[in-house]
Amino acid sequence: MTRNRLEAFSDGVVAILITIMVLEFKVPQGADWEALVPLVPVFMSYILSFVILGIYWNNHHHMLHTAERINGKILWANLHLLFWLSLFPFETGWMGRTHAAPLPTATYGAVMLMAAVAYLILQQTIVSHQGPDSRLREAIGGYLKGKTSIALYGLSIPLAFIHPWLAIGIYILVALIWLVPDRRIEAKMGG
Amino acid sequence: MTRNRLEAFSDGVVAILITIMVLEFKVPQGADWEALVPLVPVFMSYILSFVILGIYWNNHHHMLHTAERINGKILWANLHLLFWLSLFPFETGWMGRTHAAPLPTATYGAVMLMAAVAYLILQQTIVSHQGPDSRLREAIGGYLKGKTSIALYGLSIPLAFIHPWLAIGIYILVALIWLVPDRRIEAKMGG
Amino acid sequence: MTRNRLEAFSDGVVAILITIMVLEFKVPQGADWEALVPLVPVFMSYILSFVILGIYWNNHHHMLHTAERINGKILWANLHLLFWLSLFPFETGWMGRTHAAPLPTATYGAVMLMAAVAYLILQQTIVSHQGPDSRLREAIGGYLKGKTSIALYGLSIPLAFIHPWLAIGIYILVALIWLVPDRRIEAKMGG
Amino acid sequence: MTRNRLEAFSDGVVAILITIMVLEFKVPQGADWEALVPLVPVFMSYILSFVILGIYWNNHHHMLHTAERINGKILWANLHLLFWLSLFPFETGWMGRTHAAPLPTATYGAVMLMAAVAYLILQQTIVSHQGPDSRLREAIGGYLKGKTSIALYGLSIPLAFIHPWLAIGIYILVALIWLVPDRRIEAKMGG
Repeated sequence: MTRNRLEAFSDGVVAILITIMVLEFKVPQGADWEALVPLVPVFMSYILSFVILGIYWNNHHHMLHTAERINGKILWANLHLLFWLSLFPFETGWMGRTHAAPLPTATYGAVMLMAAVAYLILQQTIVSHQGPDSRLREAIGGYLKGKTSIALYGLSIPLAFIHPWLAIGIYILVALIWLVPDRRIEAKMGG
Repeated sequence: MTRNRLEAFSDGVVAILITIMVLEFKVPQGADWEALVPLVPVFMSYILSFVILGIYWNNHHHMLHTAERINGKILWANLHLLFWLSLFPFETGWMGRTHAAPLPTATYGAVMLMAAVAYLILQQTIVSHQGPDSRLREAIGGYLKGKTSIALYGLSIPLAFIHPWLAIGIYILVALIWLVPDRRIEAKMGG
Repeated sequence: MTRNRLEAFSDGVVAILITIMVLEFKVPQGADWEALVPLVPVFMSYILSFVILGIYWNNHHHMLHTAERINGKILWANLHLLFWLSLFPFETGWMGRTHAAPLPTATYGAVMLMAAVAYLILQQTIVSHQGPDSRLREAIGGYLKGKTSIALYGLSIPLAFIHPWLAIGIYILVALIWLVPDRRIEAKMGG
Repeated sequence: MTRNRLEAFSDGVVAILITIMVLEFKVPQGADWEALVPLVPVFMSYILSFVILGIYWNNHHHMLHTAERINGKILWANLHLLFWLSLFPFETGWMGRTHAAPLPTATYGAVMLMAAVAYLILQQTIVSHQGPDSRLREAIGGYLKGKTSIALYGLSIPLAFIHPWLAIGIYILVALIWLVPDRRIEAKMGG
């Protein structure tokens, strides 16, 4: 199985998820500034989720770039990742519309956590398929970023019930950690 | 006609169907656990349909991998399959929202049945286009899995009216049968 | 400009249109047969539009297969076609929900007419770009099918006001004319 | 990183945005001409946005055609452009439904402005990645069209509060400026 079709399918799902999130901006009835006010928190959560999906798409590309051959396990690990990403629009809309109430903010973190775990599983599935000389393992080293993200997302869930903005602060922090492109892979693979 | 465009189009439709199913999770008004309760059965049926679509996508890939040339019949057999797959979001939402009432559960099975029949027709169309030395026929042998699925889905329709969970048990069973990747094709094609 | 990106973009739009039409099947509140009754005409119009979009996708593929080079005019002629196709979900839903009332049925025909005109314009744009030795012109001959469709769609608009089913009969007739694959192009191109 | 995946992803997002805009045409309850009247302004704004998205897609293609290699900065500059484009369906629906009220018309211009700025940033990111012998810089010269568009969109925002149609006139003017294909790039790159 070639890598191309897996990439194209994943790109399609992510592209649709990004644009489906936009459907949460319901066109308001009014035409004045007040009509826009309820949309502001939805807009903020949209920006956050857009950036996180962008990061996944970016790193997903780099990761698959090292995988010449795809087997059934990699395919299902990829579908598993897409499953959790597919819940982003719901969580984004719920957190936004409730103005970051505790439970929606915590479940947002839980979905982020599961997506990060699914990403790690996909990474390790590719590494183990590549065998002892895995180019990907060499490039990513010890999964430091991935494991840090998982720990932080895990922390965010209880924090959301203390104060949602503590959790949101963590979501922004994790995004910033990843916005630095994975130069290790870029360097080793020639990007 | 190259295989690539047929694959890309099918991938696009399946990617969109998966994400359109997510639209059935309407963002709730409330922000507490009770607001999530009505979404649980919709979520369960989403997981089931996501896995089934993933199986179709996976096996569709393996099958088309053996088809070097595409003719008009294959194209229409493929569109026929996509037609039945396109009804998944409706059936998923209906079965989920009615908490697996008999009729929605039975019609879910009926759409699964038609999709399985359409898949078999596509398979046979490719085999007959490849002629006596068909790589695909050699690989799939006697269509055992496909025909078993069709029989089980056919059985599920009356069972749904006795008790919906009998039918849902069958849907899960068929998914498990297919989750085992088609190693015969993988082995023969170098998958 | 390569043909591939134009094909991929057109495929994406058509794949999305097909699945967006499905959104017109609103999941009903009830769980019995009566809940399905209002969906029957929507379903019938969905089948019709699905087949027509399938025909466009099929013939669009064959046509672009002959076009090695794409210029700005071809690109805009293609976007013009996609514009009219993008109105299919609206027309399909309107005709279906109103049980084929005269005006929705007539505007359905008007959109079909404009799409057929746009297809003809795209065809002639490619032919004139290919110059005197155009492979496409040689293959399609006198545009007979396209011009017949346009005449029939034009006829359907007044007929819809006499009786909508006269117009729907014409829509089915035109679909049947096109369901016969364009063997002339297939034969000449080895399609 | 190859250019292809970036193109495919961008194409996917634009294709989905175009079709999501169509969802703003809510199928009316009635079946007479009066039922269509409220849709006319939504339809007009759809045509405008469709043409503008078509222009972006067209020019985006020409621009990326000159970029052999993609780095992380280009990827994020591209996502930034897609972010602003993703707000088109909301703005199109809002401006249409409010019959071009001042604020929706002004925010439509603001989103157009940001998209034009994002396009310029993407262009300059590619140019600076290509270095002193940039094929793209040579082809585009002094960014005249892009900077003119930005100035005009900036002007449209206050004008929308004087009279919305002054702003809409500017949106149409900018579209006309861009509808002329960028022959400089086509000429230098062999299109």
